[in-house]
Amino acid sequence: MATKANSNAHPTIIKVDPFIPAHEQKGIHNRWHPDIPPFATVKPGEVFKVECVDWTGAQIGNNDNSDDVRDVDLHSVHNLSGPVAVEGAEPGDCLVVDILDVTPFEKMPWGYTGIFELNNGGGLFAKEFQSRACKAIWDFEGIYATSRHIPGVRFAGVSHPGLIGTAPSTELLAQWNKREGELIADHPGAVPAVAFPPDPQGAYLGQDVSDEIREKFAREGARTIPGREHGGNCDIKNLSKGSRCYFPVFVKGANLSVGDLHFSQGDMSFCGAIEMAGIITFKCSIIKNGIEKFALKQPIFLPSPIDPLYSAKLVFEGISVDYHGDGKQYNMDATVAYKQAALNAIAYLQKVSREQAYLLLSAAPIESHVGAVVDSPNACVTLALPLGIFDHDILPKPDGLEKHNFGQCAIRSDGIL
Amino acid sequence: MATKANSNAHPTIIKVDPFIPAHEQKGIHNRWHPDIPPFATVKPGEVFKVECVDWTGAQIGNNDNSDDVRDVDLHSVHNLSGPVAVEGAEPGDCLVVDILDVTPFEKMPWGYTGIFELNNGGGLFAKEFQSRACKAIWDFEGIYATSRHIPGVRFAGVSHPGLIGTAPSTELLAQWNKREGELIADHPGAVPAVAFPPDPQGAYLGQDVSDEIREKFAREGARTIPGREHGGNCDIKNLSKGSRCYFPVFVKGANLSVGDLHFSQGDMSFCGAIEMAGIITFKCSIIKNGIEKFALKQPIFLPSPIDPLYSAKLVFEGISVDYHGDGKQYNMDATVAYKQAALNAIAYLQKVSREQAYLLLSAAPIESHVGAVVDSPNACVTLALPLGIFDHDILPKPDGLEKHNFGQCAIRSDGIL
Amino acid sequence: MATKANSNAHPTIIKVDPFIPAHEQKGIHNRWHPDIPPFATVKPGEVFKVECVDWTGAQIGNNDNSDDVRDVDLHSVHNLSGPVAVEGAEPGDCLVVDILDVTPFEKMPWGYTGIFELNNGGGLFAKEFQSRACKAIWDFEGIYATSRHIPGVRFAGVSHPGLIGTAPSTELLAQWNKREGELIADHPGAVPAVAFPPDPQGAYLGQDVSDEIREKFAREGARTIPGREHGGNCDIKNLSKGSRCYFPVFVKGANLSVGDLHFSQGDMSFCGAIEMAGIITFKCSIIKNGIEKFALKQPIFLPSPIDPLYSAKLVFEGISVDYHGDGKQYNMDATVAYKQAALNAIAYLQKVSREQAYLLLSAAPIESHVGAVVDSPNACVTLALPLGIFDHDILPKPDGLEKHNFGQCAIRSDGIL
Amino acid sequence: MATKANSNAHPTIIKVDPFIPAHEQKGIHNRWHPDIPPFATVKPGEVFKVECVDWTGAQIGNNDNSDDVRDVDLHSVHNLSGPVAVEGAEPGDCLVVDILDVTPFEKMPWGYTGIFELNNGGGLFAKEFQSRACKAIWDFEGIYATSRHIPGVRFAGVSHPGLIGTAPSTELLAQWNKREGELIADHPGAVPAVAFPPDPQGAYLGQDVSDEIREKFAREGARTIPGREHGGNCDIKNLSKGSRCYFPVFVKGANLSVGDLHFSQGDMSFCGAIEMAGIITFKCSIIKNGIEKFALKQPIFLPSPIDPLYSAKLVFEGISVDYHGDGKQYNMDATVAYKQAALNAIAYLQKVSREQAYLLLSAAPIESHVGAVVDSPNACVTLALPLGIFDHDILPKPDGLEKHNFGQCAIRSDGIL
Repeated sequence: MATKANSNAHPTIIKVDPFIPAHEQKGIHNRWHPDIPPFATVKPGEVFKVECVDWTGAQIGNNDNSDDVRDVDLHSVHNLSGPVAVEGAEPGDCLVVDILDVTPFEKMPWGYTGIFELNNGGGLFAKEFQSRACKAIWDFEGIYATSRHIPGVRFAGVSHPGLIGTAPSTELLAQWNKREGELIADHPGAVPAVAFPPDPQGAYLGQDVSDEIREKFAREGARTIPGREHGGNCDIKNLSKGSRCYFPVFVKGANLSVGDLHFSQGDMSFCGAIEMAGIITFKCSIIKNGIEKFALKQPIFLPSPIDPLYSAKLVFEGISVDYHGDGKQYNMDATVAYKQAALNAIAYLQKVSREQAYLLLSAAPIESHVGAVVDSPNACVTLALPLGIFDHDILPKPDGLEKHNFGQCAIRSDGIL
Repeated sequence: MATKANSNAHPTIIKVDPFIPAHEQKGIHNRWHPDIPPFATVKPGEVFKVECVDWTGAQIGNNDNSDDVRDVDLHSVHNLSGPVAVEGAEPGDCLVVDILDVTPFEKMPWGYTGIFELNNGGGLFAKEFQSRACKAIWDFEGIYATSRHIPGVRFAGVSHPGLIGTAPSTELLAQWNKREGELIADHPGAVPAVAFPPDPQGAYLGQDVSDEIREKFAREGARTIPGREHGGNCDIKNLSKGSRCYFPVFVKGANLSVGDLHFSQGDMSFCGAIEMAGIITFKCSIIKNGIEKFALKQPIFLPSPIDPLYSAKLVFEGISVDYHGDGKQYNMDATVAYKQAALNAIAYLQKVSREQAYLLLSAAPIESHVGAVVDSPNACVTLALPLGIFDHDILPKPDGLEKHNFGQCAIRSDGIL
Repeated sequence: MATKANSNAHPTIIKVDPFIPAHEQKGIHNRWHPDIPPFATVKPGEVFKVECVDWTGAQIGNNDNSDDVRDVDLHSVHNLSGPVAVEGAEPGDCLVVDILDVTPFEKMPWGYTGIFELNNGGGLFAKEFQSRACKAIWDFEGIYATSRHIPGVRFAGVSHPGLIGTAPSTELLAQWNKREGELIADHPGAVPAVAFPPDPQGAYLGQDVSDEIREKFAREGARTIPGREHGGNCDIKNLSKGSRCYFPVFVKGANLSVGDLHFSQGDMSFCGAIEMAGIITFKCSIIKNGIEKFALKQPIFLPSPIDPLYSAKLVFEGISVDYHGDGKQYNMDATVAYKQAALNAIAYLQKVSREQAYLLLSAAPIESHVGAVVDSPNACVTLALPLGIFDHDILPKPDGLEKHNFGQCAIRSDGIL
Repeated sequence: MATKANSNAHPTIIKVDPFIPAHEQKGIHNRWHPDIPPFATVKPGEVFKVECVDWTGAQIGNNDNSDDVRDVDLHSVHNLSGPVAVEGAEPGDCLVVDILDVTPFEKMPWGYTGIFELNNGGGLFAKEFQSRACKAIWDFEGIYATSRHIPGVRFAGVSHPGLIGTAPSTELLAQWNKREGELIADHPGAVPAVAFPPDPQGAYLGQDVSDEIREKFAREGARTIPGREHGGNCDIKNLSKGSRCYFPVFVKGANLSVGDLHFSQGDMSFCGAIEMAGIITFKCSIIKNGIEKFALKQPIFLPSPIDPLYSAKLVFEGISVDYHGDGKQYNMDATVAYKQAALNAIAYLQKVSREQAYLLLSAAPIESHVGAVVDSPNACVTLALPLGIFDHDILPKPDGLEKHNFGQCAIRSDGIL
């Protein structure tokens, strides 16, 4: 007979409360540093769960204005759960991480996509759009997301951690800080900033550690904004529940940290996701000397068999000419090409306000392929919009596009768009 | 009863011979210019075929050395078939092009993937690898390609035109020449060149035209190397047989040209394909005023339902730090990230000589996604290698990777690698 | 800020305990009858959850013998949660049911696949195999199932309710009982039985109702074994989380009941699934007069976009000749063809004991297609086995099949196989 | 340089003319018999082509009436190309057959789907519909089929041989004739016939053979109607171009024959396909003693990676109750369930005449799954209709189904429907 006695839930090794500010909770940190002690330790082969606050640590509410997005404190992001040490892992090994599941909290079945202010967070088109804060709240209905702020759209989430990585070694951390410091030095006064140096303001380490470690952590700890050799904030939608990832190990125990869970995201954008708090289920194993065995400079992974399948798509192209701006020719610049493809998609979705399209492309399972980076001087990038996420037909028609109501996103309470 | 009388083959409106140099044949041209007269005219709704030489115009042979790649004349590429005028198309319209089929010639069931010399053609890693000519010959066995130069690999082709576009208007051509000229001026003496200005050497127009037109064509005609607003050499693998494309129309008749057919290609590389001569089947229609209706800055398209499906993949990541080179930090540069992802894949396929991996990634249906271009300063790009194309298991194993023989590509007859 | 106040969990309208016998719990019933009053009522558009015991109501344990399977009480199955009335639904309408999610209980991350005794439950090959009880316990690791009883296999679940349906009208119930009674009468003494008439033994209705209703329920209520016009025990794997189903409505409120949740199942077999207790999330709406509008004789549905994708498969064929038995030729009998395809697959998986293969084919996401039922006298059915669920390569090789250890299923404690 | 000298087309080892009656051509036969000598011989590893007439041997024309379908001579079908012997194959071996491509003749870009008369050919619903001849002509536009007789529909073909098999041994042939003879004896006078015994009328063997062999062939040769242990007329849509099939070998050389090419077909129906004449490309190899190694009772195969992908589907269910007929309950009869699912789909497509829906379901890439054959007494079968093949939206809507014009199929010139 089925009994409690023969039924063992997988243990939750880090617990958080998604309604309490992150800096009041244990097991959370928001900088990368080799000296952060493990908050929990697991054995290879053990299935375990880790709870995560949303990346901002409860700063954004389920409401209809975007003042919280406007005023978000970005010194304190991303709030990561961890580190989790895996017994037996040593520098040079490969940590195999099965991301077995990623779900929202049952008590918090919603998330958000935000556009951040040019001067506080910015985003891919922060300059082009002179971005002002706005957001869309998404309701999670089982596998689907819908939004009262973008009616007529529904899609299955490809839920994943936006940010997951092993701890850097002292040497690797020094290398990051050096190279990013040089970039910053090359772009004095850039808005938005080109990179973010270590910054004690907002640094948080939710463990009992010595003052010395805490001070080093705050002073030297790398910001979590970019992805790096250890993984980090790669925002790869396909690193989703069901994927198997191979991380390089740089410190004893590997010290895995995770956060910035996304209910869904396309191959795109700032706050480039449906951000959520939630629970991630893991199983880890170790391959000794795996960095050498697999020539790992950065994680590799096997995608999940259950990512949403929407076979019909409308694809937009972009090349490395800024034809949405001043028309300048760039040299094989995939970033410029990517932006043109995105702007072409946004222009097509003209019945949407620009903000609606921007939010939608950040949240839905769009795909962006690098078509070619060889045909000088134009890189070519494509953006594929799944047709099945719309209630209505958005295909090109002889009579033009059918008009639909895409609603209105949540804007600032002062009415500024 | 089935009879010849009730069976009408679709007409071939441009015929070429893949074994004769392109510059001896009619209906071929190798520059973009608004004044090229249509070589043939079709009605909307008509199914028709166009034959194409390979992009080099028969310069590359089915043999086991790469001297032909080393010595290829690139002044004369790409050899395009066309233009084809569509009755009723006018500037401002959208030309709907159904790419109904793309096949090799029955008499020529092979193609090639080449690596070009640093000083003659180059390629994505021309500098990094100090590229010397080499190539792989691919045999077409129905829907599959195999190569005696890369044994143990077989995959279904996602056949497509590497290059397809409508004719530019005079104004658009001027704009191209201006902006690319400025880029060239900014990079004096670059090797490989950053862009290619109009160049009378090798210019070829296989029609009877006035001397004046021929001279303008040669002097002003844009080179075919990059993709541009009209389509062109976008090298998008998903613009494959079965796709429906929406092109902006810039001149009366639209004047569609096509060439550079690929039996297969991933989201990658120079000569980034299995190059072939072959036959493309089209059907066109017109949407009046479509540029305005669909906000077309560049073509959009609906991909084919029959692209090869290999669900299991191994994915490599890359960020905008040149960690395979001097370690420099770049600012959200997707091109740098894309190169790292590719170099990670090549390093993994270490049992292959570097050239084998490079050729394979150029030919097989790999996918390259832009993961994120928002997490300053690191853009993140992924490259997904389909596992089903290999005869053997290439997954990471506790004991490392199993060794396999990937053969030897065709190299120069002087033995230089 | 994110707060409890702005976060509303979806309500659970039926709660059960998976560790308590079903007949001690409220909101459960195990017969179909029009007079069962709704246990809960929802509004169209509301998202709600329903908890379900496993189909046997906690009879099967997480252990290593199969005595519980041998001794299972089948008079009391299936234990369904419900009925749920939807406000406004009337006979003739179509009830649109979004199956938004299907998950196991967090506290019970396991399920089982059983083979039932010839004389107690039987199954597809009960006679052929003279079936004795055995079982495999499956551990749920996020989206995946693995089994200590079938090592070397892992697959993503396509979780679904094996059994879901609206309540029959009095007329429809009478029709069921009549036609099934006639079939039983035509096969006196059949083992296993060809059908199951109403049977007061084990009938359970977990609500406070009048004695009269309870008595009618027990005496007339249709057994839940087969699928019928209202849905019911169809065991369709693709009616999975993310699907949208259109049910005919036969009584006021529609009175939806659900149970027999499966973590995974292929297109196959008795106890044809990984059986589990768990939670299903729904949203319903009504289309007035939908039976007429859509010519509904039985439910129709839109499958989910997130069913597991394993593109590489090995396919077995079967025809309507019992060549695994006495060689008899049947007339276009798809059931016989289906059995041959299954037996071919089992014979292929020869390294597995017969029971292991049988259990595996019942649990994994195999597909069974009807190839043709027109080529007299042989119907043709295929069974496709996904290759990606195996740790090892099971493809045909020149040297034969590689041997692997598929372990041993749980058998009876008396050692009888 | 590319030259004729270094380009070798794959050889065509059997050539036919699709416009000449089959019985006037060489290399064609229409019965299965072990004594048919090989018409051609190939080596393992060789790529070769085989041309095929359509299954009727040019009896059906590209026109707008169905008299040819009404009057079709079925004594002479199916017209197969072959046999092809493979060097080294011996009884007991497994013949590995790569179906590398299947295409129509360039000069004959059309095919047909027919409904046959109750008394001459019949079909799945011959009795239910009291079938009269009608047909739809399909135009092949590259990878797509469209029909002037069913406007508003377009789909990519999953081209395959409806009929492919190795020659039976003398013993196997005897077994077929015996068991099918017994079935016929059990159903005297059945209309349509339950099976077809050897029949000298129409028997054709397009080779120079002795009178003795020709007489044995006509007298004993098994009809080609059903699929059997050697493959044969299985009508499996997924045995398509790109698949790899493993056939049991019963005679020296294996003696492979092929015909009844289909441009497209779903999991359905009589003349259950878009029938065409065309060309099939093969490569064969041999696995010694493969019947034993792989427990082969019938072919197994690996499907193609390029079958059309239409992810959005509408699914119909059916159970083994003839609720479209007399309401009778059948015992786990998947054939009855399959028919109900099909009739449900036809009823849904009510805006189509019954014949249009019947033709469409026979031609388009629908899928039919066996949901379950375990829930006594009802087998459950599903039929999935891909939504992407329609120009318009056929989903259920609150206001019912949108009306569309599905045209009119070609009927008899005497106007009888």
